[in-house]
Amino acid sequence: MTTVGILGGGQLARMLALSGAPLGLRFLVMDTVADACAGQCAPLLVGDYRDEAALAEFASKVDVATFDFENVPAESAEWLARRIPVFPNPRALASAQDRMVEKSLFRELGIPVPDFMDVPDRAALDAAVVAIGTPCILKTRRLGYDGKGQFRIRSTADVDAAWDALGAQAAKVGLILEAFVPFERELSVVAVRGRDGGFRTWPLTENWHVDGVLSASLAPAACDPELAAQAQAHARALAERLDYVGVFALELFCRDGVLLANELAPRVHNSGHWTIEGAETSQFQNHLRAVLGLPLGETRMLGHACMLNWIGAMPDAGPVLRAAGGHWHDYGKQPREGRKVGHATLRANDAAELARMLRETGAALGRMEQVAPVLAALGSL
Amino acid sequence: MTTVGILGGGQLARMLALSGAPLGLRFLVMDTVADACAGQCAPLLVGDYRDEAALAEFASKVDVATFDFENVPAESAEWLARRIPVFPNPRALASAQDRMVEKSLFRELGIPVPDFMDVPDRAALDAAVVAIGTPCILKTRRLGYDGKGQFRIRSTADVDAAWDALGAQAAKVGLILEAFVPFERELSVVAVRGRDGGFRTWPLTENWHVDGVLSASLAPAACDPELAAQAQAHARALAERLDYVGVFALELFCRDGVLLANELAPRVHNSGHWTIEGAETSQFQNHLRAVLGLPLGETRMLGHACMLNWIGAMPDAGPVLRAAGGHWHDYGKQPREGRKVGHATLRANDAAELARMLRETGAALGRMEQVAPVLAALGSL
Repeated sequence: MTTVGILGGGQLARMLALSGAPLGLRFLVMDTVADACAGQCAPLLVGDYRDEAALAEFASKVDVATFDFENVPAESAEWLARRIPVFPNPRALASAQDRMVEKSLFRELGIPVPDFMDVPDRAALDAAVVAIGTPCILKTRRLGYDGKGQFRIRSTADVDAAWDALGAQAAKVGLILEAFVPFERELSVVAVRGRDGGFRTWPLTENWHVDGVLSASLAPAACDPELAAQAQAHARALAERLDYVGVFALELFCRDGVLLANELAPRVHNSGHWTIEGAETSQFQNHLRAVLGLPLGETRMLGHACMLNWIGAMPDAGPVLRAAGGHWHDYGKQPREGRKVGHATLRANDAAELARMLRETGAALGRMEQVAPVLAALGSL
Repeated sequence: MTTVGILGGGQLARMLALSGAPLGLRFLVMDTVADACAGQCAPLLVGDYRDEAALAEFASKVDVATFDFENVPAESAEWLARRIPVFPNPRALASAQDRMVEKSLFRELGIPVPDFMDVPDRAALDAAVVAIGTPCILKTRRLGYDGKGQFRIRSTADVDAAWDALGAQAAKVGLILEAFVPFERELSVVAVRGRDGGFRTWPLTENWHVDGVLSASLAPAACDPELAAQAQAHARALAERLDYVGVFALELFCRDGVLLANELAPRVHNSGHWTIEGAETSQFQNHLRAVLGLPLGETRMLGHACMLNWIGAMPDAGPVLRAAGGHWHDYGKQPREGRKVGHATLRANDAAELARMLRETGAALGRMEQVAPVLAALGSL
């Protein structure tokens, strides 16, 4: 009997536990709050990630550890890794936690990336805005996600406001200035690497964000095969350099047919939720297979899939449950503004069926705005 | 927040809980033993189904109840149904618990069934063997499953031995004598009926048993569409007569192109396990949707699927995990002779791919004997 420990008890841990049960796995989830939603599906240990006693209890009860939450302190991950196997390895986690390290790695591996500069202080910000030009975005190096910890600088007139908003973070989590890319499309490649170096990617996914939070994903993304191959090569280069084990997502911008790396998410990823019903093997099961050193499952698609995120509160389930290929995912969370509380996946045998399903379901939900960009990408608006 | 209570905590309850979590459901499983495998995936209440205090505690904690175990005492089901909604209804459960009642119902609905007679005592057995002829099978009316509580009578010379083996059961659970059908194929239709009367079936499944226990299932069964329509019509007639809500399986024999009803299993069924990966909606999720009055999901297939049962102990997972469409299901049970401990499903886009996958996996597992009849049915031995 193998017990997998998961640091972080949100929906990713929940879906990992659900997809790992058929492998005969047991789970222990650690989270800082007692109502972490993964606790509905697996035993939950409540504790602070920096508390060695809590970490020691966690380590004593599991055979291997992984993450639902990418911002687990690197030292905690390293502390654990000295005692039990931890995948992905703490160095890979740390690289993805710091935008400066991450983007430097992209550049080093020859992966195109928007211009960026470290911003240790106000003088550096002024210099960076001159060097990079406007528009640009000031971001925290660490602990940012879903558009949090970012400030868009449209012209030099915004620099003061940007520093007012984020300057205090320079000494705490660091700041980075990035060129703003007026991209045409946002894509992601979700990939998995096994303990033996085996590597697979799911088909490229197109993503749409609203207020910095993922709103919809479509797979496979309509995309030049060469571009897809490039994205996969980038993901593979990163995984090999980091000796990464498990699932990760590489988020990309596409501009004028060129891919620019945005960020690496060192965990199962929201843009891969469609794989539960839309692929032969889900990202969740393959992450566990990788972490345990089991053979990786096929990543081929079953038709076409669109994932719609539910933010804040769950809508009425009826329209999705009535759709021919409608699948519902309620994370069992309390509603709260801006919170990811669930998602739906629509799976269809072909793109035309998916478009029809999306149009009907979007209308029935009163959410045409959310599905419209996906319909446009399907050539069906 | 809705909590579904499940009486019986085996693999069916386990798979119900796993498939219901995405609907935002909570579960409470009741079983007589503390190591019931569903307890790894949902809270478990240990108690006897005849213990009113335990039943009352169970009823107080759930919003609706259903069954993993068809032999829950009918009185317990009725006791519960007077307090909370119970699906399927206790009358439907009771009808399926007694082979005499069940087969009389088949006959009443015009569903062809092998000859049968009630056997209240030894004299009745002698008369029944004369009336039905040999070979025939003496079975307990109640509490039989997986070939248990059965004695095959090849000739009148076996009647004494049959009575020695089962006669004592006549006064306890009743006995029935059934004609032995030298069938060519065993089929099952897994069906679901909603609270609103909505009715769907998954494609007909062909099944192979070894020592009375299901060994392999293939879907869709190669089958004359008229035969499939007939099987579905039989299932629908039964469901409507019983006002059945939830998933059930109707097991059928096929002889000379004629279907004969064998038995009705009033629950999700082993011959429907392939629906987890092989159908748009699994039997488990549709059972819950039905029980909760939610819209039923599509039952269309995703390609072709074969389920292999693991009895006694789990084989090496490697060959299945390495197969392109291989899916592993370990129920988390201790090995024990004759016990269903897990299954695998192989899913493929077409029958030829499935045959290739089965041949390779069967060879790698050293289980060609188990896959051979499926390969033969696929025309690929």
